[in-house]
Amino acid sequence: MFNAMAQRLQELMVLFFLAIFSKAVAGLKPYARANITPDTAINNYCLSWRLAVETNNVRGWRTVPVQCLRYIEAYMLGGQYERDVEFITEQILSYVSGIDLADDGLDAWILDVDDTCISNMFYYKGKRYGCDPYDPAGFKAWALMGGCPAIPPVFRLFRNLVETGFKVFLVTGRDQETLGQATVDNLHSQGFIGYERLILRTASYKGQSAVTFKSDIRRQLVEEGYRIWGNVGDQWSDLQGEFLGNRTFKLPNPMYFVP
Amino acid sequence: MFNAMAQRLQELMVLFFLAIFSKAVAGLKPYARANITPDTAINNYCLSWRLAVETNNVRGWRTVPVQCLRYIEAYMLGGQYERDVEFITEQILSYVSGIDLADDGLDAWILDVDDTCISNMFYYKGKRYGCDPYDPAGFKAWALMGGCPAIPPVFRLFRNLVETGFKVFLVTGRDQETLGQATVDNLHSQGFIGYERLILRTASYKGQSAVTFKSDIRRQLVEEGYRIWGNVGDQWSDLQGEFLGNRTFKLPNPMYFVP
Repeated sequence: MFNAMAQRLQELMVLFFLAIFSKAVAGLKPYARANITPDTAINNYCLSWRLAVETNNVRGWRTVPVQCLRYIEAYMLGGQYERDVEFITEQILSYVSGIDLADDGLDAWILDVDDTCISNMFYYKGKRYGCDPYDPAGFKAWALMGGCPAIPPVFRLFRNLVETGFKVFLVTGRDQETLGQATVDNLHSQGFIGYERLILRTASYKGQSAVTFKSDIRRQLVEEGYRIWGNVGDQWSDLQGEFLGNRTFKLPNPMYFVP
Repeated sequence: MFNAMAQRLQELMVLFFLAIFSKAVAGLKPYARANITPDTAINNYCLSWRLAVETNNVRGWRTVPVQCLRYIEAYMLGGQYERDVEFITEQILSYVSGIDLADDGLDAWILDVDDTCISNMFYYKGKRYGCDPYDPAGFKAWALMGGCPAIPPVFRLFRNLVETGFKVFLVTGRDQETLGQATVDNLHSQGFIGYERLILRTASYKGQSAVTFKSDIRRQLVEEGYRIWGNVGDQWSDLQGEFLGNRTFKLPNPMYFVP
């Protein structure tokens, strides 16, 4: 009896280990279509959506698809957003290291501000990561607090550019009159010191698209004699239009679209 | 002895079920940083790489990072590539449906050929999905066979464009002299019938970049009076330069880069 029991137990254990082992092996496969759960299907959809947004295939979108709330939250908080920004920053630094600067002080670089230098992620957390529509009053109140944290890899890029001798221009669609001081304070408190100019949207550009406003600012810089080597932003409207610079770099932002 | 044995077996079974159940529950979480295995770390890296490539942040790359071989294989074969193409095609069709065509027959659309209309995935499978460097002779031999299958969502777009009344121009960097007939045969065999012109690279464009060659072709079409409403390609070199058209759409291709 004892022997029979022991043998049965041994058989059962072998079966269980086989079951667990096969599960573990399945887990190592890069893809297993049989495993698609509703969650996986939504994640796959949201990955397609995010790719389409980041490649500028989807334009003029007002809100994140509500079924992607958890996906975008996971993207922003789970590490992949940081990894994506880090990866692009490494590419930028590699490009920067190959540039020979002239000694006329006219080698320029353009950085956007919101979600390029400093992050609005905490604000957008309260807006369901962009599932809620844009709220101008809410965003103004947030920006006035001046509490946007630096985005670490971009801050590192900023320091590198300034130390290398680039004239760094921070160009933002934020309204100069109402948000100028708060933006300066926010940037300084986060260590953004040593830039050449912070250029905000003045009254004459009110109502103009970011593409028009930013193209015009870049045109003025080029007319002043600056050579724009790089132009970094989280919105395609930072990187389209005229006088784009020698290279543009798109940082990820799946939370909102600025036309 | 029998009872003690049965009880021990029962305890073991409870433990095994708990282990399996906790594994299943963990699988439902959208993100779980504690679960990061070397495989996950590589996948995360390759996802960043793919995003950077598709957004044109990484340029002039010659091969897929070899650690991403399994990731890219999974992307191409596991369904996400198809979903991404499908998603973008839906966006394009939505844009198309809002266009009012004139009755002068000058409403035009541009499609690239390789990995836009027809797929080279089977060829690139043999080149480790782009982990091996570009092999001009190998690709020529493959293209001469004329066996590239249509990419189904893009074929659907093509049919829609032709039926709607657009003049569809297929513009490809393939060499006219050596690959012209094979390309025509391949496209026809896959149902691409009814396009206005197939434009291949003639001797005069030999050695020119795709941006220069394709810009010049588009310029000629615009000079003929055509209005380019849309321009679809898997390479940024299809979508940069001049006379780009009213909208451009980037299809995914993480396997190779055409300058």
